[in-house]
Amino acid sequence: MKIGNVPYRSVWVDQDDGWSVHIFDQTRLPWVLDILRLTERDQVAQAIRSMQVRGAPLIGAVAAYGLALALRVDASDAAMERDAAMLADTRPTAINLRWAIERMLARLRPLPAEARIAAAYDEAGRICDEDAAQNEAIGRHGLSLIQEIAARRGEGATVNILTHCNAGWIATVDWGTALAPIYMAHDGGLKVHVWVDETRPRNQGAALTAWELGSHGVPHTVVADNAGGHLMQHGSVDLVIVGTDRVTRGGDVANKIGTYLKALAAHDNGVPFWVALPSTTIDWRVTDGLTEIPIEERAGAEVTSVTGQTEDGRVETVRVTPPGSRAANPAFDVTPARLVTGLITERGLCAASQLGLAGLFPEHAEA
Amino acid sequence: MKIGNVPYRSVWVDQDDGWSVHIFDQTRLPWVLDILRLTERDQVAQAIRSMQVRGAPLIGAVAAYGLALALRVDASDAAMERDAAMLADTRPTAINLRWAIERMLARLRPLPAEARIAAAYDEAGRICDEDAAQNEAIGRHGLSLIQEIAARRGEGATVNILTHCNAGWIATVDWGTALAPIYMAHDGGLKVHVWVDETRPRNQGAALTAWELGSHGVPHTVVADNAGGHLMQHGSVDLVIVGTDRVTRGGDVANKIGTYLKALAAHDNGVPFWVALPSTTIDWRVTDGLTEIPIEERAGAEVTSVTGQTEDGRVETVRVTPPGSRAANPAFDVTPARLVTGLITERGLCAASQLGLAGLFPEHAEA
Repeated sequence: MKIGNVPYRSVWVDQDDGWSVHIFDQTRLPWVLDILRLTERDQVAQAIRSMQVRGAPLIGAVAAYGLALALRVDASDAAMERDAAMLADTRPTAINLRWAIERMLARLRPLPAEARIAAAYDEAGRICDEDAAQNEAIGRHGLSLIQEIAARRGEGATVNILTHCNAGWIATVDWGTALAPIYMAHDGGLKVHVWVDETRPRNQGAALTAWELGSHGVPHTVVADNAGGHLMQHGSVDLVIVGTDRVTRGGDVANKIGTYLKALAAHDNGVPFWVALPSTTIDWRVTDGLTEIPIEERAGAEVTSVTGQTEDGRVETVRVTPPGSRAANPAFDVTPARLVTGLITERGLCAASQLGLAGLFPEHAEA
Repeated sequence: MKIGNVPYRSVWVDQDDGWSVHIFDQTRLPWVLDILRLTERDQVAQAIRSMQVRGAPLIGAVAAYGLALALRVDASDAAMERDAAMLADTRPTAINLRWAIERMLARLRPLPAEARIAAAYDEAGRICDEDAAQNEAIGRHGLSLIQEIAARRGEGATVNILTHCNAGWIATVDWGTALAPIYMAHDGGLKVHVWVDETRPRNQGAALTAWELGSHGVPHTVVADNAGGHLMQHGSVDLVIVGTDRVTRGGDVANKIGTYLKALAAHDNGVPFWVALPSTTIDWRVTDGLTEIPIEERAGAEVTSVTGQTEDGRVETVRVTPPGSRAANPAFDVTPARLVTGLITERGLCAASQLGLAGLFPEHAEA
C-alpha cells in the first residue's frame, strides 16, 4: 500500500546492506512516521512484545526475519533452536508467530549451518510474499460480500462496515485482512463507509485503522467501542469484518478484546459478522477456543494510560484513572463459532466450522 | 457519602447565603476536587450540558435548583415556564430532568409569584432528600442480591460485580443507585470486588467510579469497556449492576452507551444483569425504548480526545485519532427488557416488565 505516493510493505530488508530489517514503529503512529532498523534478535523480540510491530500475520513475518538476524550471530543447531523458541514466545495468542517459526525451522534444520543465513532470508521473504498474495486473495473474496450488499441496497447506497482493532495493511505484510476487501471495494468505485472502533486500551482503531483509511481516502467515522451495539440496533451497520489472531479448527475466533461483544450485537441484530484471515492464522491443533487458546494479559498501564497528541503538537501520555486504582488488561477474547457468519480466507469464503474449514483446506481435515 | 472524613452530598445550598447552589465539577475529577458555586440559570444549564454535573438523578435535582435560581430573577408565569422549558431541554435522554422540572412546576404554578422562590428551594430540597432516601432503599434491596450470591459462594469467597459508567453517589444526591448496594455490602463486611468499565468516551468509570470506590476503600479493578464479555466467559463476574437514565413502562433500559453490549454478554453467559433506579427514572409514558427514547448525540471531540494527568501532574487533553478522522458519539443505548434480569427500585426488586413494574407501582399501572 502507499503512504503519500510511495509504495510500502510493513516489513522489508534494507536494499543497501541486504540484511537489516525495517518496520514502522506502530506505537508512534499516527503522530510520527518512524521507520525502525532492526539488526538483532533481541531488538526484534522487543519490537514484537512492545507492539512496535503487531498484527498476527505481521509478527509472524517479522519473527521470521528475527531468526535470520539471529543466525548471523550463531547458526548452530543449539543456537537456532534457542533463538527460534525465544522469538516464538514473545507473544502467546497469535498463532502466526508459531507457524512462521516452525516453517523457518522446517526449512533450516536440514541445512548445514553455513547455508542457513541465506536460506533464512529467502524463507522469510517467501513468507512475506505469500502473506501479501493471500491477503490480496482475501480482499477479492471479501469484496464479493460487499458487492452483494451494495447490489441489494441499490444504486448510490453506501455500504456501512464496522471493524474492530486494526486488521489493515500495517497488521500484515501488505493489503491487510479485514481491510483488504474494503480497499478493493473503495478502489472499485463502490460507496463504502467504515465505522472504526476506537479499540481500547491501545487504540489500534482510532490510531491505526483511522490513519490507514484516511491515507487511502476511505470514508470512515471513529466510534467508542461501546457504540457498535447501538449502531447495529438502528440499522447503521450492514456488515462487520474483523481480523483474527487465531482460529481453531472448529471456527472459534480469538481476536482483540471486545470482538466477542460486537459479535453478540451482530447476532442479536441480524448483521453479518465475517472474519478475514490467511490460513496461517488457523490453529489446526485446537478445537475449543475458549479453553484452548492462551489469552495474553498485558500491563495494566495500557488501560490506565492513554497516549495522544496535544493541541500544540506534543505527544503525551496521560493517566485516566485515580492513582490508587489498578487495572486488568486481557488483550484478546474468543468469539464462539456460533456467532461467526463466516470466514474469508485466501481460498474463498466458508462457514466458521470444522466442516466449512475442511471444505477449503482438505489437507488439514484429518490432521 | 464522605470525602476523606467530611460528609458531602453532590449538590447543596450554601449555608451562609442560603441561596447559591454548590456542586462538584465532575469534569475535573479525580484530578481536582473543585466545588462550583452556581448563581444563575444559565450557569446551571451549562453545568448540565457540559456534564460538570451528570447522572440522571443528580441532573434532575440540580435543574430543580436551577429553576429556583431563575425565579430569583423573574418569578412571573411567563418567565417560569420559559426557564423551566429551557432547563428541561439541557439534555434529552435522562427522564429525571423532565420529572424534576414538572414536579417543580406542579408545586409552583398555583402559587403567587412572590411565594415561588421560597417554595422552589423547599421543593428542590425535598427532591434531594427523597433521592437520597430512595437510593438508600435501593442499596438495601440490592444488598440482598449480593448477600444471596455470597451465601451461595460460601465463606470467604469474593463476590465480583461489574458496573458500567458511574451510578455512584456523585451521579445522585447521595448513595448512588448501582453502587449503593455495593457500598452497603462492603460496609457490612461482605467481600466484594468491582470490575469498573472505563466507559469511553468520557471515562466516567475510570475517572469517577474508580475514584468513588477507591475513596471508600472498596476493592476494584478498572478494565477497558471491551473486556467485560471475556471476564463473563471465564466466570469472573457474578453479577452486573448498572444505573439508568430512563426506563420505559415495559422495562427497556436506556443507559450509558455500551450497556447493551454488557447485557448481551451477561445473557450469553448466564450472569444476572440488574438495573438500579429510583422510580423517578421511569418514563411511564413510553413502552418501546428503542423507538421512543431520544438518544443524545454528543460532540465527536469527546471520542477523539482524552483528558488525564501527565506523570508530572499536569492535566492535559490529547487527541487519539489522526487529524482528518471524524467521530460519532451516541451517548446512550437501549437495553431491551428481555436482557434485564430485574430492576432494583426503592420499593424492592421486580422484573423488567410492565407486569413487574405495575406490581411495585400500582398507581402508575393504568397511566
